[in-house]
Amino acid sequence: MEDIELFGNKQKGIDFLNHTKQKKFTFSLVISYTATSEIPGITIAGEHPDLIKFTSPADAEFIHYGHCKSISVIPMTPDGKPTPALLTKAALEAASVPNIVINAGSKITPKLPCLDLGLDYGKNISQEPAQSAEDVRKAVEYGRIIGRFLGATTDCLVIGESIPGGTTTALGVLEGMGVKALVSSSMPKNPTELKINIIRDALERVNSSDPFDIVSQVGDPMIPTVAGILSTASDLTHVILAGGTQMAAVLCFSKSLGFDGKNTAIGTTSYVINDKSANLIDTVGTILDIPILAANLKLGESQIAGLRSYADGFVKEGAGAGGASIACMLKTKIDTQKLLELTEIEYRRIT
Amino acid sequence: MEDIELFGNKQKGIDFLNHTKQKKFTFSLVISYTATSEIPGITIAGEHPDLIKFTSPADAEFIHYGHCKSISVIPMTPDGKPTPALLTKAALEAASVPNIVINAGSKITPKLPCLDLGLDYGKNISQEPAQSAEDVRKAVEYGRIIGRFLGATTDCLVIGESIPGGTTTALGVLEGMGVKALVSSSMPKNPTELKINIIRDALERVNSSDPFDIVSQVGDPMIPTVAGILSTASDLTHVILAGGTQMAAVLCFSKSLGFDGKNTAIGTTSYVINDKSANLIDTVGTILDIPILAANLKLGESQIAGLRSYADGFVKEGAGAGGASIACMLKTKIDTQKLLELTEIEYRRIT
Repeated sequence: MEDIELFGNKQKGIDFLNHTKQKKFTFSLVISYTATSEIPGITIAGEHPDLIKFTSPADAEFIHYGHCKSISVIPMTPDGKPTPALLTKAALEAASVPNIVINAGSKITPKLPCLDLGLDYGKNISQEPAQSAEDVRKAVEYGRIIGRFLGATTDCLVIGESIPGGTTTALGVLEGMGVKALVSSSMPKNPTELKINIIRDALERVNSSDPFDIVSQVGDPMIPTVAGILSTASDLTHVILAGGTQMAAVLCFSKSLGFDGKNTAIGTTSYVINDKSANLIDTVGTILDIPILAANLKLGESQIAGLRSYADGFVKEGAGAGGASIACMLKTKIDTQKLLELTEIEYRRIT
Repeated sequence: MEDIELFGNKQKGIDFLNHTKQKKFTFSLVISYTATSEIPGITIAGEHPDLIKFTSPADAEFIHYGHCKSISVIPMTPDGKPTPALLTKAALEAASVPNIVINAGSKITPKLPCLDLGLDYGKNISQEPAQSAEDVRKAVEYGRIIGRFLGATTDCLVIGESIPGGTTTALGVLEGMGVKALVSSSMPKNPTELKINIIRDALERVNSSDPFDIVSQVGDPMIPTVAGILSTASDLTHVILAGGTQMAAVLCFSKSLGFDGKNTAIGTTSYVINDKSANLIDTVGTILDIPILAANLKLGESQIAGLRSYADGFVKEGAGAGGASIACMLKTKIDTQKLLELTEIEYRRIT
C-alpha cells in the first residue's frame, strides 16, 4: 500500500505528485465557526459545549506553539482522543513547512497573528441564515486577495480548515447545489439523520439557485473564503484542499464561480476515504474531475489508544492533517511509519 | 549615476545586490498610527486633521486596488503632491511583486485582508505613554511569527511602513537610546524644533535604560513590530528595511534585542539621502554596519509638478516607495527612467 494513495482522476494525481515532489510548500489553516455546532450531538469537538468556540483557535495555537494559549489544555476528548492538529503539527514541523493562520469568522481570535478577513462567525442554520450574502461576497473577494499572495510565494499551497460542526453546513451547501452526498463525521456513528433534518429545514429558506444565496442561508464563512483563495492561488501554483467532505462543498461552490479544477487536488486521510457512511470519492467525482490524494496513516498500529481511535472511525481528519501529512511526505523522505513515530512523540509530550 | 546607489558598508551592499538580483521578492506594508500625528504642524499627511487616521489604510488600499476604499480620494495634498504609495504601486505592479498588508495598530482597519497583530494604536507621546510595555512585547513576539512565515517564502522581504507622524516617534526612540539623530520629514522646512520639544518632554517619563520602556513611552507600534519581523526573517532570507529615519529607529531597537545586521539593508530614496536636515547615513552607521541602498528616482525630471515636488524636498519617501523601487529594479530590467514613466501613467490615471 502506497503512503499516498490516489483516487479520482489518477493520471492527474500522478502529475500532481510529480510536480510537487521535493518542492516548497505553504500550509494555511482557515479557522472559522458555525453556531450550528452548538446543536447537541453534532460534533465530537464539543463534548463540552462551552468549549466548542475555542476549538479552532486552540488548533491554530497548538500547531504554532505546541501548546494552546486561549485554553489551558489541548483539544482532546476526556478519554484521550486528540485533535487532528496534533498530526498536522508533527507533519509540518518535521518538514519545516511554513504555516499561516487565516481567520475567517472564528468566534474567538487566536493568540497569534492571523490573516484576518474581518468576517462575522456563522450563525446556527437551524434557526437563521448563516451569514449575509454581502459577507459571502466579501469572503470570496478577500479570499481571492489572500490566494493571490499565498499562491505567488510557494510551489504548493495546502489549505486546511478547522470549523466544528462544519460537515453539517457542508452537507447543506452540497444538497442546496444539487449534489447528493453523504458527509463524513468526527464520530463513528454518524448523526446523519440529525444533520439531514437540520439542513432540510434550513434549505427551505433558500428560494433561488443563486450559489451566494445558498451559502448565505445554509453554509458557513469557511466555504466562500477557501473558494476565494482557491480561485486565485490555483492560477499561480498547485493547491491541496486539505480535508474531506467540507472541501467537496468548497469545490462545489467554486465550480459555480467558474473554477475548473486547475492545478488542484483534494488531500485527506485514508480514514475519510474508508468512511462507509460517507462517499467522498463519488461526491468529488460528480463535481469536478480532479485527483484525491489520501495519506495512508498508520495510526491503527499505534501503542496509544487515543491515536488508534482514528483508525476506528473517530475524528478521522481535520485541521488539514491529511494534506499536511502529504506535504511532509512529498517535501521530505519521511514516510507514514516515521510520521507515526513523530505523532506518538508529540502525543506523549503533551500528555 | 547608478539607479541604485550604495552608502554605508558598500561591500556588503554589493553582496546584497548580487544575492537578490533577479530573485523573488515579497513586499509587506506595516500600517500603524500614532496620535502624535494630531499635533498641528507635525506631518504633511495631515493637512486635514480628521483624515490623518485614514492615511495608512488608504495607502494600503491604493497599493492593492489602485484606488482607496476607506476614503473617496487617494491621499494627496490640495496642490497635487501624491502619497508615496503611488510610487510603491507602480514599482510593485511593474515587477509583479506579491504584497501583503500588516496591521500593527492602525486606527482604521483597511478594507482588505491584513496580517493583524491585534495591537492598539499609539497614543500621543506629548501627553501619555505611546503603548503599554506589554503591547511592545506582543508586537515583537507576533512580529517574530510573521517574520518567520514571510522570511521562509521569499528570497528577499521588503518591509515598508505607513504611519503619519512616525518620524517624531522614531526620533524619540533614537534619542532615548542614546543615538543623536536628525530625522527626515515629509515637509521641506522640517519642524525639527517642534519634534525635539515633544520628545524631550516625553523622554522625561522614561526612567530606565530598558529598550521596552523607551519604546513604550516615546515610540509607536510600528517600531517593535518591524523589529520582530526583522529578527526572524533575516535568519531565513534577505531583508530590505524600506524607509528612512524610521527604519533607523527600528534598527536601534532591534540591536538592543541582539540583532547584528545579518542579511539586512536599508532601502530608501535619494531624496532622503539628500535631505540636509537629516543624516540617515551617519545615524545608521552609528547603530549597525549595514548597507544603505538608495533608489535614484528621476521625479525631478517629471512633467508633473506634484511628482517634481519630491525632488524639491516634499514627502521624499514613505509606504516603502524606495524599497519597492529597488525591488522592482533588482527583479526586472526596469530602470529609473522607466519607473518615472510608469509613475506618471499612474498619476494621470488617478487625477
